[in-house]
Order: sequence, then C-alpha cells, then structure tokens
Amino acid sequence: MKFINIDKTDAYTHLKTIQPKDLATVLDKERINEYQIEAACGLTYNYAAMPVDNQSLAVLQNLADEQQLIQKYRAILSGEVMNTGENRLVLHHLTRGQLLGKVIADGEDKGSFYAAELKRVEAFSEKVRTAQLVGSTGKPFKTVVQIGIGGSDLGPRALYLALKGWATAEDITQLEGRFISNVDPDDAAEVLGDMDFETTLFILVSKSGTTLETLTNRDLVLKAITDSGIRGIKAEKHMVAVTSKTSPLASSPSLLDAFYIDDFVGGRFSSTSAVGAVILSLAFGYPAFAQFLNGAHEADRLALETDITKNAALCDALIGVYLRNALDIPTSAILPYAQALTRFPAHLQQLDMESNGKSVNRMGEKLSYSTGPIIFGEPGTNGQHSFYQLLHQGTDTVPLQFIGFSSSQYGKDIVVEDSTSQTKLIANLVAQIVAFAMGKEDKNLNRNFEGNRYSSLLYAEKLEPKTLGALLAHFENKVMFQGFAWNLNSFDQEGVQLGKVLATKVLNGCEGDEVLKAYADLF
Amino acid sequence: MKFINIDKTDAYTHLKTIQPKDLATVLDKERINEYQIEAACGLTYNYAAMPVDNQSLAVLQNLADEQQLIQKYRAILSGEVMNTGENRLVLHHLTRGQLLGKVIADGEDKGSFYAAELKRVEAFSEKVRTAQLVGSTGKPFKTVVQIGIGGSDLGPRALYLALKGWATAEDITQLEGRFISNVDPDDAAEVLGDMDFETTLFILVSKSGTTLETLTNRDLVLKAITDSGIRGIKAEKHMVAVTSKTSPLASSPSLLDAFYIDDFVGGRFSSTSAVGAVILSLAFGYPAFAQFLNGAHEADRLALETDITKNAALCDALIGVYLRNALDIPTSAILPYAQALTRFPAHLQQLDMESNGKSVNRMGEKLSYSTGPIIFGEPGTNGQHSFYQLLHQGTDTVPLQFIGFSSSQYGKDIVVEDSTSQTKLIANLVAQIVAFAMGKEDKNLNRNFEGNRYSSLLYAEKLEPKTLGALLAHFENKVMFQGFAWNLNSFDQEGVQLGKVLATKVLNGCEGDEVLKAYADLF
Repeated sequence: MKFINIDKTDAYTHLKTIQPKDLATVLDKERINEYQIEAACGLTYNYAAMPVDNQSLAVLQNLADEQQLIQKYRAILSGEVMNTGENRLVLHHLTRGQLLGKVIADGEDKGSFYAAELKRVEAFSEKVRTAQLVGSTGKPFKTVVQIGIGGSDLGPRALYLALKGWATAEDITQLEGRFISNVDPDDAAEVLGDMDFETTLFILVSKSGTTLETLTNRDLVLKAITDSGIRGIKAEKHMVAVTSKTSPLASSPSLLDAFYIDDFVGGRFSSTSAVGAVILSLAFGYPAFAQFLNGAHEADRLALETDITKNAALCDALIGVYLRNALDIPTSAILPYAQALTRFPAHLQQLDMESNGKSVNRMGEKLSYSTGPIIFGEPGTNGQHSFYQLLHQGTDTVPLQFIGFSSSQYGKDIVVEDSTSQTKLIANLVAQIVAFAMGKEDKNLNRNFEGNRYSSLLYAEKLEPKTLGALLAHFENKVMFQGFAWNLNSFDQEGVQLGKVLATKVLNGCEGDEVLKAYADLF
Repeated sequence: MKFINIDKTDAYTHLKTIQPKDLATVLDKERINEYQIEAACGLTYNYAAMPVDNQSLAVLQNLADEQQLIQKYRAILSGEVMNTGENRLVLHHLTRGQLLGKVIADGEDKGSFYAAELKRVEAFSEKVRTAQLVGSTGKPFKTVVQIGIGGSDLGPRALYLALKGWATAEDITQLEGRFISNVDPDDAAEVLGDMDFETTLFILVSKSGTTLETLTNRDLVLKAITDSGIRGIKAEKHMVAVTSKTSPLASSPSLLDAFYIDDFVGGRFSSTSAVGAVILSLAFGYPAFAQFLNGAHEADRLALETDITKNAALCDALIGVYLRNALDIPTSAILPYAQALTRFPAHLQQLDMESNGKSVNRMGEKLSYSTGPIIFGEPGTNGQHSFYQLLHQGTDTVPLQFIGFSSSQYGKDIVVEDSTSQTKLIANLVAQIVAFAMGKEDKNLNRNFEGNRYSSLLYAEKLEPKTLGALLAHFENKVMFQGFAWNLNSFDQEGVQLGKVLATKVLNGCEGDEVLKAYADLF
C-alpha cells in the first residue's frame, strides 16, 4: 500500500477540471433508475441528482484505484495497524462479523472476543428483560439510563430513538431508555427528576474509564440513588460498566456487571460494540440488536466491491470528494424524512467531523487541500419550514443527503384530503429533491429557483433494525473511504486534547495564565 | 431612508481590505474586560476573541451608519411597511412592548391588540392552571401539546426546554409540554403513545390556518381522542387555536378557545406572540412569560443605541458581516454551555437561515455578495466530544458563538475532585474559547493548534425567563441588522414555496412530470 496525498494523484488533477453536469439537462427517468446502488438489506443509494456523469465517475474510479481505497479497507479488515498515530488496529467492522481472515492482537482472536462479549450481553439482557435479574430491592428493571458522552452517547441515543417506534409496532416488550451526557448538572437533574431508582439500571460507558463528564455523572447518579433514602437500595447494584479491560473501571466488583470493548474500536464507531449493544439489547431485546448487526455486516460486505458504480458507500464517498475538492463546497446537510431519525444527523455530525476534520495527513504533514465538510441536519418536513429557505435561495450551495422510507414505523396514520400522512411525507421528500435539482424560473427573482442544488437519496421500505444497521455502516464506510482518499488518519482525534488540558488548568486556578483567568473571572 | 446594496457603500470597500487581527497577539486581560457590551438584564456580549480592533470597529460603525441600520430598526418599530415583498409591517417587537409611538394598522392600535390577546392568554392560563377550566370529562389539564411546525414549533419548543429546569427549581406548578410538528405520522404516534387525553390540552398553531402538516396533525389528534373511546370525551374541547383572525381556523366555535396573532409577526419571530405565550403561560404560569417578555423588551430598547460598541446586537451583527464578506466565512456555530438550551441552536438556525438565506435584495435584484451563513450547533460539553475536532483542526474556520451561565438551573450539583459539575462546565467553556483563539504550537503537527478560530461569548448569571428573553431578542435583532446591512427583506420566505407546489403535484399523481414520477416510483 502507498499513502499519498490526494493532490499527488493523476485522477485528482483531472477531477479538478471537470465541470458539474447541469441537472436540468440530464435528470430524467432513465438516469433516476440507473444511478443507484443497493447499500444492503434493501437500502438503496440514489445519486441521480448529483452533478456527475459516466465521465466523471470514471475519473472517480481512477481516484479510488490510485488511492487504493478497497485495498486499505481490506487492510483494516485484516487487522493491520491503520490508526497509525495511536498505533492501533481499527476493528469496528469486526464487532458485527468477520469478513476476511481472523484478526489476532494482544494475544487473542479479536473476532472471538467481540462475539463472546456479545454473547454475554445477550445473556445479561435476557435475564434483565425476563426479571431473572432484578434491582437491589427486588423489583424488575423498567428503565435503562446510558451515562456516556460523544461516541458513548450520540450513536446509541440516535439508534435508540430510531428503533422505538418499530419496537412498539412489533409489540416488543420495552425498557425505556434515557441518556445523561453533559457535565452540566442540569442534564442529570432533568433526567433523574421523576426517576424510580428501584426499577432503573444505569449503564456507565467510558472506554478509557477516565472521561471527566462520565465519571462525574456516575458519582452524581450514585449519590442521588443513595440520597433517595429508599430502604435497602444498593446504588452500585443498579449500575453496569462498559469499558476496556485495561481501564480503571474494569475492576469495579461492586457494580452489577461489566462488559468489555477495546482500544481498536473508536468511540464514534462503537455503536455496534458493547457500547450500543447493552442499552439496545436491554431496551428492545437482543434479537433486534442482532438484526441491526446483520444489516451493518451486510453493508460492510458490499463495501468490498471495487467498482464504484456497484459500491454505494464508495460512490457516495467519492462524489463527496468531488463536491469538496473540485467544486469547493464546505458543507453537507443530512435530511432524514423520518422523525425516528431525529438525532441521526447529530451522530453523523460527530462521525464525519471528528474523523475527517483534519489538516494533516497520516504522516503528520500539513495538507494544502480541503478535507472533511461541516455536517448538519434536521428531519424533514420540519426543516422545510426552517433552514430550507437558505438551501433553496441562499448564496451558498449545500449538497443534501436525503433519507426516506416507504412505510411509517407505527403505522398509525390518517387519510386527510385523500392521502395518508406517510404519503404526504414522501410527496414532500420527492418534491424537495426535484425542486432543488431542477429549480424554476420566475421573472420575479425573489421567486426564482436556480436549481442545481445537488442531493442524493438513501431509501428503503421501512426503518427497522437491519435497515438501520445498513444505514449506519453506509456512513461509517463512506467516512472511512473519504479519509483514505484524503490520506488522513480518520481514527484519532488529537483536536480534542488542548481543550482538556486548558480546562484542567482553569480548575487549578488558571496557573498564572492571564487570558484564561480573565475569561474565568467573567463567571 | 435609502436601501442600497452593501457593496455600494464606502465602508464595505474599506472593510474588504482590513486584515483580521492575530488573537495570539492582541488577546489579553484588558481586551477581555473592554470588548464587551450589556445586551440586557445582565446578559453580556463579549467579543474579545473576534478578530477586530478599534480601527475595524470604526469601519463597521461607518457601515452601520451608511446602511442606516438604527434608522431602519426605528422604521420597523414605527410601523412602516418593512416587509416590502409581502406589503406587511414587521411588528414582533411590539408583542413585547411599545418602544416608539403607537402603531395603527388595519384600523386598530396594534400594540393594544397584542396586549389584549396577552391579557386573554393570562386569564385563560390562570383558569387552566387553577383547574377552574378543566377537560371535557371534568379532569384538570396536566399536559399541553403544541401542534405546529417551523416558527410555531422550534421557538416555543426551545424556550419550553430552556425554562423547565428553572421552573422546577422555583417550585412552580407545571403542566408538561409536548410538541407534534412533522407530517411523518410517527411523530404524532410517538407523542400520543402514552397520553391521557382526559387531562391533555392541545394547542393548534398556524397563523395562516392552512399549514399542511398542522392541519393533518390536528385531524390525526382529534381522531385519536375520539377513537380512545373515553366515555363523554369531546375532542374539540381539548383543543385551542392560535391563528390570525382572517384564517380558516379563526372561526372554529367548536374548539375550547382561540387566541390571535396577525400577519405582521413572522413565524420565526413569533415566540413572543400568542404562538409562544399560550404554551409557556400554561406550562410555567403567566408571570414567567411576562418576565420573558420584559427581558426581550429591554434588549429591544438597548438595540436602539447607535454606537456599535454600546449595542450588543448591532456589534454582533456587524462583526458577522465582517466574517462573512471580508473573510469569506460561510458558517457559524452556536455553542450553548447549558443543556437547557439543547434546542436553541435549532431555533436560531431557522431564525437566521430563513431570514437571511437569500440571493436577491429587497428590490428583487440579484446580489453579487454572500448573505446569511449556515448555522448549526449543539450544547457543550457534548460537542467537545463530537464535532469540535473539525472546529479545532479542520481545514475551514468556523466562527463560534458561545453561551454560558455562572449558575445551573436545578442547583443539584456534586463536588468531585474539588469542583462542582457547574464549575467544570464553565472551566470547559473558558478553556475552549482560549484554545480556539490562542492555539498551541507543537512540532507534531497532528497536535498543533493554529489558533485564530474566532468566537464571541454571551454570558449571564443564570438562565431564567428574563435572561432568556434578552437572549432571544439579541439574536432576532442581530439577524434584523444583518438583513438591513445586506439590503435584504429578512421577513419573507419565498424559497419555501416551490417545494409546496411540487408536493401538491406529487399528491395529484405528478401531473405528467416525468422526473417527479420517477422519484415517486422509488417508494
């Protein structure tokens, strides 16, 4: 494998010269039916409204080949040290199944390790859900609360919300899920406000076991349980840990149980490890989580394809590179037409911006081209009544990533003026794609729409566990491929360190730093 | 008054030549204490970490004067037709109090109209909160559900969440607030899932009375109540309307009551009208809402100041113009260090992007400069473990708008390692400002922080109703001033129309539009 900057490839030089296609000219029925790829489990990626054609796709294929994107993905799957800065393997794919050979590290078969932990999560969640394992005062658990931040919060939270309606419609017994993340004490106060501690199980999630926010919230929760004065309650028997075996939390024999991850699964990629497994299996049952893993695994498998017109994640990644580096567009919006995905954009924001928001390559050299874009988004149709004004008529182009499903989750719908709400939802989604792409001329320029506002669409029949797994893995693999294309290490996050150091300094009285002190004195 | 494009002003030409100050050179204790302005009610705007100095501020002052920003604000307050495209007055300021003379329109004193509606909301909310007015089966109301979208949802929802902890700590009797916005039927299904209709009051909010999502959700809710089979329940007696007197909803005698707004208050500016008043007064009592209005009114008053170094909203607006047009920065992040403000960035995203995301001036002529930026954000410290990596080390600069408070709302805190969680929260906020501004050199470029990542800070002692009012009005006025600077009409939203037209077309079978049909057939 060779690791070279993208601007040193022949394809990149070529790419920079390629003009975007005019969508009003090229977008037709044939293109809409042709420019799409199955991402896995019925989830399909449609890129008809992206400004590419067979010529630009050929150049993007050359770029993929020159940057050896599939070869590097295979290196990840094979257990090579691809998080070079931290000298670590990158094994989140292995948490949902093995695609190539066994990965041996730290003297163990890592695939077996993840699978064994998953088995333990399955057994534990079944015991809790069937009330074989109960709270310290003898009552069954009804609520699970995840205490974690960043990757230990955003992914699991987004996925929990994404599956709640599905599980209700499927008549699955549910434990209610809640989340405490922020060090702001009002976060825990709000979540704990009306809580019945006797029937609540807390999941403490920190890979390192040293995360300031999480440890502080652990202490706050344990104190709140103890202070509740409930006769006989044992606070630590209402808490399990998810952490690495080498962390200070690993040996907490007073806790109810512990489940393990390791340093080879980065926080933002950890939803398919025990970080997501414990809460999701408790909330919806292990079988749902297993389906979710299967969806992700299937997407991982399809992402091995070398032809970019047959590999949804790869194609999405490369079109993103074209938008970013040839068309100089710094942003991208995630627009799910599904209320259940309300926090999915926030998860993707972390996944993408923390992985590829970097200015040095994997050898630590300064780059002279743009890397990861700014990601934001809210569900449609809500966004249509909010920031879409700028998307339609603002001075900047924002590429859009639509997501939609034929059916709702709950299936509780109503016909008003001859159509269901779900039909109206999809009609709006379709209308927006076309409005952005094609525009509409009007002599009154205030009502003129220029069009050529690019979008792609990920769609499936219904948002259920396997579709959700495929959707998550699609974006994880997209981000991975883009990181390789830009020659980044997408798996470290040194940018978060300085703030931690300075925060400790402030807590220690600012240590003579006049600027810190002057800001601290404002409060 | 004259309305000219910003690039036709002398100040703008000058502004474009001004280099940003190097923060590492200029940021010191004196600057931090000097570069700040009271926004109202103890809320202070600090811009020490913005790349300006007295020279650039003088140019921005000239720009403010040339574009007659205060004069135009006064024209709004005086009731001139400042929403020219729609031939409407712009009266949201008047919903919180009168600053200049009376505004007469449609044959009435508009200030008296808003005040009278507010009195009606006060009386109604008191009757509900004291159970003089109860549900149709005789039970007191315990839950209020707002049915609205866009401006009828984002602002009220953000404000409700912002005050919940404050009200709890103040021992104020609360009605629980919920929100249904999306036409996705899963939104209503989720909110209605465990609802006790007998004790629930729905607030139907649509100024025009024609909003597709809101009318559909109204029907869905009314049907759900009726289908509940609760003996004697009268669905429409569990619903009030907030609408304009000319809307189809205005004469709904079967509803429990109706409260009125008018076309002179735009949706995204309507939180201080009946749109926010009904739900917030029901949830927390009218006195809290009155304090909130007072905070906004005080901020409006201070925004009349012509000296940009004494007018927080004006200064913030003009620095934003400098970032956008001289430094060519297309984005801005809102980072509240307060979990209670978790949805405040989503509201500001609408406020800003819907108001100023435009490419034509108020005369309908195409512009050749950048206007409103892309706004996004999440609460800190959560964001630190997510997208801050890109903010610190990405290839693009994103200006940051921090918000912080000395005290928490609930006051339920814990000391861990010698500091409270609130202290840790503020230490992190201070650390981030300084880390972004000053950076830190490291020979390992992967650990190098370039600094000069600009930010401002809005801070106060505590997030309570009057502070929240001041905070909201600060941003509303900032957006208004920027719109005037760019010579936009910030008060219309023609960009949302095309999508509506095409959605109707899809619902009517696509009317022969091949592209629409091909997309619709995917689902």
